[in-house]
Amino acid sequence: MQGSHAWVESTLNEYLHLTRQVLEGYFPDKEPRRYLYDLVPSYPNRTGKGLRPGLCIATCRAFGGSLHAVLRSAAAIELYHNAFLVHDDVEDGSEFRRGLPTMHKEHGVGIAINVGDAMNVLSIRTLMDNLDALGPTLTWRVFAEIEHMVRESVEGQAMELGWVRDNICTLSDADYLRMILKKTCWYTCIHPCRIGALIGSGGSADLDAFNRFAYYMGAAFQIQDDALNLEGERARYGKEIGGDIYEGKRTLMLIHLLNTCTSAERDGVRRFLARPREERNAEEVAAVHELMIRYDSIRSARTTARNLAGAALREFHQAYGSLPDSQDKRLIESIILYMIERDI
Amino acid sequence: MQGSHAWVESTLNEYLHLTRQVLEGYFPDKEPRRYLYDLVPSYPNRTGKGLRPGLCIATCRAFGGSLHAVLRSAAAIELYHNAFLVHDDVEDGSEFRRGLPTMHKEHGVGIAINVGDAMNVLSIRTLMDNLDALGPTLTWRVFAEIEHMVRESVEGQAMELGWVRDNICTLSDADYLRMILKKTCWYTCIHPCRIGALIGSGGSADLDAFNRFAYYMGAAFQIQDDALNLEGERARYGKEIGGDIYEGKRTLMLIHLLNTCTSAERDGVRRFLARPREERNAEEVAAVHELMIRYDSIRSARTTARNLAGAALREFHQAYGSLPDSQDKRLIESIILYMIERDI
Repeated sequence: MQGSHAWVESTLNEYLHLTRQVLEGYFPDKEPRRYLYDLVPSYPNRTGKGLRPGLCIATCRAFGGSLHAVLRSAAAIELYHNAFLVHDDVEDGSEFRRGLPTMHKEHGVGIAINVGDAMNVLSIRTLMDNLDALGPTLTWRVFAEIEHMVRESVEGQAMELGWVRDNICTLSDADYLRMILKKTCWYTCIHPCRIGALIGSGGSADLDAFNRFAYYMGAAFQIQDDALNLEGERARYGKEIGGDIYEGKRTLMLIHLLNTCTSAERDGVRRFLARPREERNAEEVAAVHELMIRYDSIRSARTTARNLAGAALREFHQAYGSLPDSQDKRLIESIILYMIERDI
Repeated sequence: MQGSHAWVESTLNEYLHLTRQVLEGYFPDKEPRRYLYDLVPSYPNRTGKGLRPGLCIATCRAFGGSLHAVLRSAAAIELYHNAFLVHDDVEDGSEFRRGLPTMHKEHGVGIAINVGDAMNVLSIRTLMDNLDALGPTLTWRVFAEIEHMVRESVEGQAMELGWVRDNICTLSDADYLRMILKKTCWYTCIHPCRIGALIGSGGSADLDAFNRFAYYMGAAFQIQDDALNLEGERARYGKEIGGDIYEGKRTLMLIHLLNTCTSAERDGVRRFLARPREERNAEEVAAVHELMIRYDSIRSARTTARNLAGAALREFHQAYGSLPDSQDKRLIESIILYMIERDI
């Protein structure tokens, strides 16, 4: 198992490296440097798992497509992802990202928002340059995939931000899953697989065949991410441990806790969540964490993640089963368990 | 003169009305409403001059193009503009926009940033729908124009934000003009004219012929806007009077003042600008305003705006001179003086 994870990590890393080489060509080497273009590569160059470009490239190759054909689209997905992160960190008031201070903590909110906007428009340029390698029809279809991807992501983000802002404490597991389908799954798994299949098959693949598989994988990924936020090691995970509790994020664990604890405890948690982030302190965060352990909220979330990974494995055979065996096909299958067993 | 301005305002208003009708079809009527789609129309529906869609539509028609062909592009420009404004207001810490509280003052910073991101992706959809009316080649060229427009705007925005953040007090008029070329002119005048000409001429017009004209017009517009921020009537102008001084914006007036006053006065202004916005008070803002009057900074900026408008009039004949006379051609010419004489 450990060996397989090492192989997954090194292969994803190799694809991420190739993706970054393409991206570097899109980082402008011009003014304004200090307030813009010096900062654009900051997030993309931090350590990352490379899940999104990895899924996109591996799916394309599993369909018999070439690296050359898919790399620009993988790079655009990776750059959009990093633009999301820059804005997401401002929106959530996060302090650390991949082991370093967030963009707005280092450079101020105004400049961080603008850097995210610049990363978004540079992604568009990357996609426009697909024209030579893919021709107009495929280039246009990739564009339409990305447009949908971004739209779903802002919708999911709106749900999460609204729940935190209005201190909504009556959510169900189904609400959570609907939110992460939008916030995480489309851009982390579904569209990377769809775009890889689109390019790899030259436009002939049925893209909807990947939706369930990649939804299950993405949901397992997000829940594992939320669990690592509580139980991971800061140095490996790269974010503040317990940061989600500080930020009041509606994770599956918090929703489970609110639906399981006594009404007195629920009132206490709700009062904690009603105060602005900067008025929450470490003891209170630890107390909420304690309650999550006591009510088995974390174990319950991990069970859900495992079940989702099981569903993803089943759907993998539906989505990829008819393709010939290949390294890339095995990589995608191996990512499923890696997703819920990783510690970064 | 007053009569001509009334005609400019009513014609721009008519074009803005048509643009908004198209835009309404792009505001999703779906969840999440409260945290996203209810808020997307907020800025676009506030009163506005409609300068950008007006220039785009009038230029297209002056070339003999149809309303139908240009309206989606005009709508995309207007929506991008409003997305910029939502982010710009967060970045500058502005409190009022078009007579109402800014998006982040009303809904919080996180939700406001995300609404701006949603508006950006809805603009992309609007442009993609050009395909039927314009065909692939023109649709693609409009896309390339917009990509450049957004890139220039984030570059100009970065310069302005950086100058404020680092309290840069050694700027020249040339620095200011370079900044507003990027921040304002490309997206307010140059690309609206270029895109109108591109569509109106079916792709045959030399788009670079509009760059100088629309740069001069855009610069005159921005300087007038900055002057109105000091001398306008809150009720008509819609922003806080003196807001730019509160925000520490490097306007032509502030740059003139810093380069003209005594070194003791300059030190005082610099100390005022070094403090965070929320620590600046109304008396200090009034004192800076007083200095600008005493050193003729406002009159000097208005003279520059008039000279720029004169240059725009000259360039108008270069850019539009060979086109047959038309209402739309006269409208564009009339906008030049309207730009520097308007009080909203």
